[in-house]
Amino acid sequence: MKRSERLVDMTKYLMERPHTLISLPFFAKRYDAAKSSISEDLSILKHTLAGNQDGILETVAGAAGGVRYIPYLGKKHAEEYLTDLASRIEDSSRILPGGFVYLSDILGNTQDLRRIGELIATKYAYANIDAVMTVETKGIALAQATARYLDVPFVTARKRSKVTEGATVSVNYISSSLDRVSKMELPTRALKKGSNVLVVDDFMKGGGTLTGMEELVKEFDSTVAGICVLCEADFDKNKLVDDYLSLVKISNIDTQKKLIMAEPGNFLTETDFSRF
Amino acid sequence: MKRSERLVDMTKYLMERPHTLISLPFFAKRYDAAKSSISEDLSILKHTLAGNQDGILETVAGAAGGVRYIPYLGKKHAEEYLTDLASRIEDSSRILPGGFVYLSDILGNTQDLRRIGELIATKYAYANIDAVMTVETKGIALAQATARYLDVPFVTARKRSKVTEGATVSVNYISSSLDRVSKMELPTRALKKGSNVLVVDDFMKGGGTLTGMEELVKEFDSTVAGICVLCEADFDKNKLVDDYLSLVKISNIDTQKKLIMAEPGNFLTETDFSRF
Repeated sequence: MKRSERLVDMTKYLMERPHTLISLPFFAKRYDAAKSSISEDLSILKHTLAGNQDGILETVAGAAGGVRYIPYLGKKHAEEYLTDLASRIEDSSRILPGGFVYLSDILGNTQDLRRIGELIATKYAYANIDAVMTVETKGIALAQATARYLDVPFVTARKRSKVTEGATVSVNYISSSLDRVSKMELPTRALKKGSNVLVVDDFMKGGGTLTGMEELVKEFDSTVAGICVLCEADFDKNKLVDDYLSLVKISNIDTQKKLIMAEPGNFLTETDFSRF
Repeated sequence: MKRSERLVDMTKYLMERPHTLISLPFFAKRYDAAKSSISEDLSILKHTLAGNQDGILETVAGAAGGVRYIPYLGKKHAEEYLTDLASRIEDSSRILPGGFVYLSDILGNTQDLRRIGELIATKYAYANIDAVMTVETKGIALAQATARYLDVPFVTARKRSKVTEGATVSVNYISSSLDRVSKMELPTRALKKGSNVLVVDDFMKGGGTLTGMEELVKEFDSTVAGICVLCEADFDKNKLVDDYLSLVKISNIDTQKKLIMAEPGNFLTETDFSRF
């Protein structure tokens, strides 16, 4: 196979398997090529990704070595995307009765989810995440998009027990927006003990749901590696969690004046983009 | 930019934007290269994808022309994957009380979802799908994976009304496994009138939930382009829908003997893989 064809296939192969170590002999065999040629191919790939600041090709030396594609976006991409996203959220037709915000279009848009997933995966690229956790329903899209770029499983806590999940562990938490004690649960087999878990959700008002997920992680003898939400309602000051990231911060919703104000959240300042 | 670098970037760019028409002048400008060079690059890409039977690069001629990457898997890939998936489902530890089957691990595995999404997107690659629809909760992963490869939005019908979705349209349907009338709803703004909708779900026993989604599609003056489920329980003979595809067919579950039997579903025989 010619270099040009190898490069096409190699790019596709690596992109489909983020964070997965692929050995040089594997590629050498796949393309019936010398290891030195494969090394040259990979350095072209690495260089191209770095030039665009939209991915890292990591070389692992030694007998058990190989290469690994790390989805990773540069700060410029993050700023551009989050500024655009915040301005799209500043659309008065999104305001729902009760001061809620309609986001289902964004959470059902695969191009947005790709960008959001890549961004969250950039932040946690080197955090040794074992699983992404969310709670049904709207957080699922976010969890799936993130898990895809970290190449880890995602698990969904549920607010109601289901016969199709078997034995579960359940916790109670204070749902601050509803001002009542709620319950969420996760199948016992969904998460291994000792996992390092990234918690994601679509929207954070008081943060009650997030405390529920923190409890759930603890029940599985696991640790919370981080908490990241798509949108936070910054005007709700009684937050039950403090160590979290938001991609977009909604600073004000005026249902009477039909006004909604949004800007990039603390994700932008709290993420280390220095690998480029 | 050299051809080798162009090929890496072009492969990544096109893979990230399936079914999207990219004009030749766009690439010519992006790489500061002649259109004839870009054409040669694209024919290398096309040839490589076709050789692997894992994608189609479609050329659209004329002034408004360009290229389009169509995720499309060859029959060999489909057979291999579905045979493997069926054998993994034939695991007695998946059997839950009541004859239900635990599938959350597969529905939370991003590599499985990639393959499943690519397969369903192969079947409907040329069916002019406008949106993918599912119903909460476990179908969401499937809808998202499929929508990603068709580059269309996905929408989630809900069994319970939510304040974060605004006005909704609701329908009643017979949930056969529960033997009662249930309700599902979709935000009015989630789906445009006249859409061509692909309905997907994780598991089909009697098909009641699928009839609910069919009703919902009708309420939006839209058409059902197809119905595709991950698993069907073939031993449940009272199906309420007949025109559907399943990736995997579970032919028998014996809870006493701890036995579960699965095989590739009718998806394999009903899909036209002849474009390779």
